[in-house]
Amino acid sequence: MFESAELGHRIKKAVYDEEVPELRKALLDAQVNLRKSGNFQVIILIGGVDGAGKGETVKILNEWMDTRFIETNAMGVPTEEELAHPSMWRFWRALPPKGKIGVFFGSWYTEPIVNRVYGTIKGSELDQATERIIRFEKMLYDEGALILKFWMHLSKAAQKKRLERLERDPETRWRVRDIEWAHFKLYDKFRQVSERALLHTSKAEAPWIIVEGTDPRYRYLTVGKTILNALCTRLDAGTPNTVSKLPPVLPPVDGKFLLTSLDFSQSTTKEDYDQKLVKYQRKLNLLVRSPKFKKISAILVFEGSDAAGKGGGVRRVTGALDPRSYRIIPIAAPTEEEKAQPYLWRFWRHIPRNGNFTIFDRSWYGRVLVERVEGFCSDADWMRAYGEINDFEEQITRCGAVLIKFWLSITKDEQLKRFKERETTAFKHFKITEEDWRNRKKWSAYEIAVGEMIAPTSTDFAPCRVVKANNKYYARLKIMREICTRLAAAL
Amino acid sequence: MFESAELGHRIKKAVYDEEVPELRKALLDAQVNLRKSGNFQVIILIGGVDGAGKGETVKILNEWMDTRFIETNAMGVPTEEELAHPSMWRFWRALPPKGKIGVFFGSWYTEPIVNRVYGTIKGSELDQATERIIRFEKMLYDEGALILKFWMHLSKAAQKKRLERLERDPETRWRVRDIEWAHFKLYDKFRQVSERALLHTSKAEAPWIIVEGTDPRYRYLTVGKTILNALCTRLDAGTPNTVSKLPPVLPPVDGKFLLTSLDFSQSTTKEDYDQKLVKYQRKLNLLVRSPKFKKISAILVFEGSDAAGKGGGVRRVTGALDPRSYRIIPIAAPTEEEKAQPYLWRFWRHIPRNGNFTIFDRSWYGRVLVERVEGFCSDADWMRAYGEINDFEEQITRCGAVLIKFWLSITKDEQLKRFKERETTAFKHFKITEEDWRNRKKWSAYEIAVGEMIAPTSTDFAPCRVVKANNKYYARLKIMREICTRLAAAL
Repeated sequence: MFESAELGHRIKKAVYDEEVPELRKALLDAQVNLRKSGNFQVIILIGGVDGAGKGETVKILNEWMDTRFIETNAMGVPTEEELAHPSMWRFWRALPPKGKIGVFFGSWYTEPIVNRVYGTIKGSELDQATERIIRFEKMLYDEGALILKFWMHLSKAAQKKRLERLERDPETRWRVRDIEWAHFKLYDKFRQVSERALLHTSKAEAPWIIVEGTDPRYRYLTVGKTILNALCTRLDAGTPNTVSKLPPVLPPVDGKFLLTSLDFSQSTTKEDYDQKLVKYQRKLNLLVRSPKFKKISAILVFEGSDAAGKGGGVRRVTGALDPRSYRIIPIAAPTEEEKAQPYLWRFWRHIPRNGNFTIFDRSWYGRVLVERVEGFCSDADWMRAYGEINDFEEQITRCGAVLIKFWLSITKDEQLKRFKERETTAFKHFKITEEDWRNRKKWSAYEIAVGEMIAPTSTDFAPCRVVKANNKYYARLKIMREICTRLAAAL
Repeated sequence: MFESAELGHRIKKAVYDEEVPELRKALLDAQVNLRKSGNFQVIILIGGVDGAGKGETVKILNEWMDTRFIETNAMGVPTEEELAHPSMWRFWRALPPKGKIGVFFGSWYTEPIVNRVYGTIKGSELDQATERIIRFEKMLYDEGALILKFWMHLSKAAQKKRLERLERDPETRWRVRDIEWAHFKLYDKFRQVSERALLHTSKAEAPWIIVEGTDPRYRYLTVGKTILNALCTRLDAGTPNTVSKLPPVLPPVDGKFLLTSLDFSQSTTKEDYDQKLVKYQRKLNLLVRSPKFKKISAILVFEGSDAAGKGGGVRRVTGALDPRSYRIIPIAAPTEEEKAQPYLWRFWRHIPRNGNFTIFDRSWYGRVLVERVEGFCSDADWMRAYGEINDFEEQITRCGAVLIKFWLSITKDEQLKRFKERETTAFKHFKITEEDWRNRKKWSAYEIAVGEMIAPTSTDFAPCRVVKANNKYYARLKIMREICTRLAAAL
């Protein structure tokens, strides 16, 4: 894979001096057009061998382009804040918004490659990691991002020469630390592991560009022209990455949905409820005060039809918690900052630190519910969302978050009863709006969407609990019990 | 000050049970109206004596109100991320947006009070701290926030009894740690210092409400009713906190402005420039690589007329820096998330971690420039901004940030020349828009605004450098020299 980057590529000074002004102008123009179009962002990863000119190349890009619209992110050793969140959190936090360019020094590749080189993970684990990366980058691509991944390469002899030269010069000596020489000793291993990871993850939607790092002029021109070419092609195309000509989804031919086949005959009494609720709340309170909870977090998702009792469920949970330890995130329409990012970004920003709860009142499932039913996104968008949601939930749970998801289900008749009750009770009046009545008219479209959503997103690591909620007492106890069980198992 | 909170206030259970449902309903209604109005946020501070029921009170509020629109913030020991920023950063980060309620457990009062009790600061320093707080809260108030500060009080005997009772009960024993008893030993000192701080900072715009903490029912009703009363009064008033009937500002009667009295005859040559620029860039690069820089940060502000050379100045600075260490923040119109916060919030969110640079291309001075000239805010708003900006700059510099501000000044003729050049040079065409021409028509209004702005905001801790920029070489060298000098002094 690296052979073509060991050919001794060179660019003569005269050629370079002639080409650069033209290239700079074109890059600046492309940047202006990117900003004007505002419908995608550019994500540039810079990886490769130490001493192959990664830093200098990024510096040149910043010189050539309008630095106000490039952000360079050093993804080095994670900070304490970053360590207290799922590992992908810091990358999501650093994603550039649409219209901008984000350069990542060190990326989601660093950890798996380094861990494999040092033998802390197995080859099969590296492959799992790269599979996750492929899906992550595919999602970014589908969300519109232009992704370019540069790998700066040096042959073993060239790297040695380069490190020695840097070390000799008093001006650059500081850049060669012990760790650079330690890495050099692992050159062969590093090369082999990188090759495996790069081969695996070089896709049409996020290609690796291997750049020989010996000659700075060759390196700068290659990177500059590659960016320009990709940016112009994308700007000319004008359309988003995905096109949405897909056949419509057929409902089950026997008309049987997950939700229509539920039995709603539960009859928990008030007395039973009062007694058990206290028991569960006490248990939850104790679980959360366990020192072990400081090392994990809990993410609760409440989904369900309007008036299914999401709010009531949430209150029974928070009743057991210290208000300092939780955040409730009601999900409504995205803000403009959120719209300038891949759709999962607005959930990532609320993922809690360890030791804390985040409770989502509606969630990322909106993508395959309201956005699907109302046509806010294309068919292709919501269809790919099942897989993206799985990946997202796997990313947050793999790092220790306990993710507990509820779908609160009520019958159409029960909803009508509750809507009317809300309209007549002064106390509850604010809970019912015109929109609720409008949504109710689409009951069957939602029924299909929910029926199709639960199976593909109810996974081993993030099962979705369908809660029959015509009887509120029954539903709340079921919620409390589930949370206690899941937390107890995780602690 | 605390006498009225040692009277043994009590509420009978029957009274409480009768009043609570009414109060809850009213609070819920007020919350809905707050959300609908969307033009202010509620900031509630909870302070006071250990064991006086601070936590329980917040828990009750969360039970009574719609928890989706209350955020509770525990401001305990700062995290590593928070310590790497100016100390006020974490409070700004936690401010609720308009339409919401934010509860702060521990606040900007905690540190000065505790430090004074333990004797690490002097009485005069406590007074300075409370003066800063008064100005900070006044700013929040002027920006529309409703501020309520509750102090939960217990007499010394009552506190002792309370701690002992908590300790006896196995369910609550965990809540009494050594630190609570250590604080108790300092009861008298704590009372005296708190009284001083509270007396000093209880203002009409942000009053302290002292609540006797012995009886939970009394405590809950007092806090609930106080919030309801304040919220309803404010909602009824309907208008923002400040009214803007102010006399217009008169220009200097002799027509002499700061900017019109500048001498623009500088003549730095290209040769001189090239040579000195390299020298300064090298120096800056060395300064930033100093280990001491890891403990401070640098904030650069570039302001100036259109086409005064802000971008060119920024590029000469970034040319000396590692792209990983800086962020350039171009300031344009605020986003909707930014509009839901006090106007300084959108600058606070970009304040760098120690070891980093943030370069603002335009800045908070927009408040007294474009917002004033275009009438985007009221006269009262921009008039109070001078003091608020001083406070803001003092807050960031006191924690070690080096703040360097430039006003790049060119003559009206020079601007015309540059505009025309931009229009005819393909390379620079994107830099000139209709808006630039429109702004140019308001040259004299801006001249007044700038002239009036510089003196009150050029302070000892954050001087503003007026850079005569008709000669670009001269201007850029002056910028580089200033940055090197200021950084060298700080390291």
